[in-house]
Amino acid sequence: METRLKDTLIPVRDRMEELIRFKQKQIAAALQALEPQKTFHVDEWDREDGKGGGVTMVLQDGKVIEKAGIGISIIHGVLPPAAVARMKVNHKNLKAAVDGTIEFKVCGLSMIVHCTNPHAPTVHLNYRYFQTSDPETGKSDAWWFGGGADLTPTYLYEDDAKLFHQCHKDALDKFDVSLYPKYKSWCDEYFYIKHRNEARGIGGIFFDDVDIKSADELLLMVNECLGAFLAAYIPILARRIHTPFTDAEKHWQQVRRGRYVEFNLVIDRGTQFGLQTPGARIESILMSLPLNATWIYDHHPEPGSREEQLVEVLKNPKQWI
Amino acid sequence: METRLKDTLIPVRDRMEELIRFKQKQIAAALQALEPQKTFHVDEWDREDGKGGGVTMVLQDGKVIEKAGIGISIIHGVLPPAAVARMKVNHKNLKAAVDGTIEFKVCGLSMIVHCTNPHAPTVHLNYRYFQTSDPETGKSDAWWFGGGADLTPTYLYEDDAKLFHQCHKDALDKFDVSLYPKYKSWCDEYFYIKHRNEARGIGGIFFDDVDIKSADELLLMVNECLGAFLAAYIPILARRIHTPFTDAEKHWQQVRRGRYVEFNLVIDRGTQFGLQTPGARIESILMSLPLNATWIYDHHPEPGSREEQLVEVLKNPKQWI
Repeated sequence: METRLKDTLIPVRDRMEELIRFKQKQIAAALQALEPQKTFHVDEWDREDGKGGGVTMVLQDGKVIEKAGIGISIIHGVLPPAAVARMKVNHKNLKAAVDGTIEFKVCGLSMIVHCTNPHAPTVHLNYRYFQTSDPETGKSDAWWFGGGADLTPTYLYEDDAKLFHQCHKDALDKFDVSLYPKYKSWCDEYFYIKHRNEARGIGGIFFDDVDIKSADELLLMVNECLGAFLAAYIPILARRIHTPFTDAEKHWQQVRRGRYVEFNLVIDRGTQFGLQTPGARIESILMSLPLNATWIYDHHPEPGSREEQLVEVLKNPKQWI
Repeated sequence: METRLKDTLIPVRDRMEELIRFKQKQIAAALQALEPQKTFHVDEWDREDGKGGGVTMVLQDGKVIEKAGIGISIIHGVLPPAAVARMKVNHKNLKAAVDGTIEFKVCGLSMIVHCTNPHAPTVHLNYRYFQTSDPETGKSDAWWFGGGADLTPTYLYEDDAKLFHQCHKDALDKFDVSLYPKYKSWCDEYFYIKHRNEARGIGGIFFDDVDIKSADELLLMVNECLGAFLAAYIPILARRIHTPFTDAEKHWQQVRRGRYVEFNLVIDRGTQFGLQTPGARIESILMSLPLNATWIYDHHPEPGSREEQLVEVLKNPKQWI
């Protein structure tokens, strides 16, 4: 894998596709090892219009994992003029065809894990590569990478937050030490539930429309970030999934799941875009939703409780490292 | 109440406020009678900017009622030019101030009931009166009524659907026999979960921006519709809340609750508007969410089952009467 990733004779898009196919299986295997009684359900799907497809893997209702979804999609198509106009804000060199449309290819890996144990945090990850074609030459015109990974605990463990951030910082530092602070802040800003005045979780990294380095180098950076994710999250799970928990703690987890649903359905641009896209596979988009969620009217944690300690950190995002 | 409602010397807005205050208590009392062990929690609230307030009543985690919310709000303020422009589409005679803004007053009643028993349907109701002022004279410039009521069963009982629609048809027929067919279709169109290709429930009535009759007459029509709601829903509850049910039926109810959350958070214009409004009381807006909801990846009911029978009707909305 590493050798092929560095082989600049292979188009970046093809190497990214190989990477996400490989990482989907690798992440699934790592989670599967924690949940031997259940297996991932695998759906290979094609878009009805023939414009690509993907593989959605879901494991739900396990002993350790309440719901895990790992999806890849490899899609191509034509962007309408309105979408092109929006993209030109960040990519001024985009060349549209005479009718204002642009051909695009996108491939990405998206995943989420909601755990049974309220002491084990939810995690979300998404990395994607987007590429447009010059309508005259058919060659790649503009391209960019986007993505990130972020952690959403129900109970705050500072060690987990620090490990998650440190692993991602180490991965990014190999390419440019200015990246982690920037992508950390971007993550805090993006994963923010405006109507609740609180962050979704304790953050991680997030970036979009990134073409500041060569595509070859950014592909390697995404690979490093994917490695950082596994290096952080699997040990975090290993030390939390056996923690004894009470009904009240499980209940608090379900309330926090409600906030997760609010973010994903009300705010997340990717979900909104997916739900409005004709021909999109809805089940692959909404695999991110938890198995269960609760809404209690006007719920507030007890002053001084561990539940309040979490909310405090969500209202005032911290520098973890 | 009836006498004052017809007293045209009292401004319509004041009569509407009296009506919703009265109906909030009346509906709460009717529900309370079915749930004697619990009481409604009552929150009287004022907006921080002093521009009105409301009363939110919630009863949750009962034996019969999983969650019921009944809210009234009486708000006034200034609409920004962008909102005025959108409103002019339906109200061409709106007069804005020199800076493009318009003063408005709105009062409304909004309610929802999610039942414990999966055989008892969820109901939603909302009626509101909106009024703008001519910036020069300060007098009412444009006004309109909006609202409706709709039923969302987990299991289909045709008798319930028929009773709910018949009561609302009877109420509207007293004013104009052309209204029910129109408002029934409007309801089917509005409460539609586009990304699922299915209706939220079996419908009811819905209308908005209505000023086709005198405000005096429309106020009486809203009063009739509120009467129709109680006449339909309380008997429906009485005959369903004691139906024995299985864990599998409860589970199906929770899956349908997930769809309800999807509609309210992704599609409902009122919720979206509320969540984006600075100073809005979020808990009063989100009281509509169920106590619990479930998302199962790629869930489909068994062919020929009662669960599939419901989905069939949601995919192909029917004329019930």
